[in-house]
Amino acid sequence: MKAAVYHGPGDIRIEERPEPEIEEPTDAVVRITHTAICGSDLWFYRGEEDHEDGARVGHEPMGIVEEVGDEVRHVRPGDRVFAPFSISCGECEFCRKGLHPACVNREFLGPHGRTGAQAEKLRVPFANGTLVRVPDRYADDEDALEALLPLTDVMATGHHAAVSADVESGDTAVVIGDGAVGLCGVLAARRLGAERIIAAGHHEDRLELARKFGATEVVSARGDEAIEEIHELTYGGANHVLECVGAESALETAANVVRPGGNIGYVGVPHLESAGFVEQLFFKNASYTGGPAAVRNYAEELMEDVLQGTLDPSPIFTKTVDLDGVSEGYEAMDDREAIKVMVDLDE
Amino acid sequence: MKAAVYHGPGDIRIEERPEPEIEEPTDAVVRITHTAICGSDLWFYRGEEDHEDGARVGHEPMGIVEEVGDEVRHVRPGDRVFAPFSISCGECEFCRKGLHPACVNREFLGPHGRTGAQAEKLRVPFANGTLVRVPDRYADDEDALEALLPLTDVMATGHHAAVSADVESGDTAVVIGDGAVGLCGVLAARRLGAERIIAAGHHEDRLELARKFGATEVVSARGDEAIEEIHELTYGGANHVLECVGAESALETAANVVRPGGNIGYVGVPHLESAGFVEQLFFKNASYTGGPAAVRNYAEELMEDVLQGTLDPSPIFTKTVDLDGVSEGYEAMDDREAIKVMVDLDE
Repeated sequence: MKAAVYHGPGDIRIEERPEPEIEEPTDAVVRITHTAICGSDLWFYRGEEDHEDGARVGHEPMGIVEEVGDEVRHVRPGDRVFAPFSISCGECEFCRKGLHPACVNREFLGPHGRTGAQAEKLRVPFANGTLVRVPDRYADDEDALEALLPLTDVMATGHHAAVSADVESGDTAVVIGDGAVGLCGVLAARRLGAERIIAAGHHEDRLELARKFGATEVVSARGDEAIEEIHELTYGGANHVLECVGAESALETAANVVRPGGNIGYVGVPHLESAGFVEQLFFKNASYTGGPAAVRNYAEELMEDVLQGTLDPSPIFTKTVDLDGVSEGYEAMDDREAIKVMVDLDE
Repeated sequence: MKAAVYHGPGDIRIEERPEPEIEEPTDAVVRITHTAICGSDLWFYRGEEDHEDGARVGHEPMGIVEEVGDEVRHVRPGDRVFAPFSISCGECEFCRKGLHPACVNREFLGPHGRTGAQAEKLRVPFANGTLVRVPDRYADDEDALEALLPLTDVMATGHHAAVSADVESGDTAVVIGDGAVGLCGVLAARRLGAERIIAAGHHEDRLELARKFGATEVVSARGDEAIEEIHELTYGGANHVLECVGAESALETAANVVRPGGNIGYVGVPHLESAGFVEQLFFKNASYTGGPAAVRNYAEELMEDVLQGTLDPSPIFTKTVDLDGVSEGYEAMDDREAIKVMVDLDE
């Protein structure tokens, strides 16, 4: 089968790899029909993260179950499914707590793990605890599938930011970052009932999409200027701040614009050199909560909204490629020509 | 009147200063009867924090109201009162939210502000919002007063750590630090119903007091050894961690021993150089919350427990001096001869 493989910064190739097989009775093999390229894939693509030459890439799989092990009850061959960026057993303390990325059997897809979703097929360990089944009625509804695909990562991650920032009905929320996750954070804040949503970013086209997604105001500035604007808009800071980037500057902005006693939800993998923001959090008694999203925990509730038509993150896909076009997809993401790239293997 | 004055590292002197007077109609003047020396006073005493030569020190005042301005209703001359380490108006958004240290009229006592509590008298701005009145029945009960004095700072701070760490009945809590705040954190966790309290520190005598205060286990080790012991005791980390020090090593320990999805409550002013712990918090989805304690918010509920005899932090005072002995008191704290020093001005 064909699979996307990492060969160093800027070098993603489609190569032949052995077909995956059932190895454990809890495995499933899924034929990938849709997957995506993630902003976090750019860390290794840009050489800011090291991986083994030959590592498999991609962590946002959707497809059709081909084969299941003897202990798999939750799905059957022929089912349309998607899976989060990490494997979860569904049975341990942390899965029971709804904290699947801390699963004691966790395994990441992509170069941090042993396999990748940008491929024709994928072996999914702990299929009962990992795979999310799309109801049959929507199993071949291309629009529904395209809107569900972001639930594998970025939509669930934006939701996690909003939940971690304690956004509730009537609140004012600030979303830092206008990438796919920030845009999904806007959708999530609106879905949770936020009254005002201030989206902060640097790209006019993305902030335009943020408005379509429900942002009531946008701030297109950097550093101190952005902070000042947000302070003015919020009369001294927001109680709910979604930090959707992970860069130090974004975290500093978040610490600066959070209101005393407020909550920062952060979901970008932190890339920090100094800890200056901590003193600011301290004197504001601001709460700082986040991490990898519990995609599996949020999947059903988000899927319900997608299928009933009240949530549609699909506009974040501004470019579609087939599997052979994956390398071109990385390039478009890297050049910021595309917000997010869908890989459609049935195309 | 006499007041303790800072003249550089290691140099605290008792000097004559003008008697404070009512300057605003919301002021009160309090004759100090009891005050204390705080672990946080050691930052400047050790030269790790810079202040103006001649700055007034002390931030834990208890005494008798001498005079009040026209708009002061909450207290009258003759009342026994105590006050938090910071002034609060009682009327702004943050005071109403119970977040008095973020009061828009906040002013710190001690060298960060304009006056200090280690003195014969103190002018208290915003007396209605700041002063806590001790019920008349206990106003001259020396045992009660000694148990109430820590409510000006350390007991409320330990409580804030426990509340920020989300400690509830039946929980397992880890308390990092065996200073006065850590010991009060143990008391607070017990008071909130924690089932197991693991106190981690370096001093046998203090850990012995931690046991008396309710610690079910103590860990007397440093760095990796402490982390390993706590992991063993908690089968992989605690959901509730009270970080009561503020040093980078303590925060790293906290990040290491918190269980995935758990809560760190931190109350030591952070003194950090690197932000390595943030990545750990991220991958654990651990919450990090804290800051200066809302002493004024917690005062009544803690006072009730002290006066009914179910809470007694007074054993943290292992040395008592009079005002002329303040310098000796700093020395004893600096040498770790005393856990905490009480200054008894009526002695």
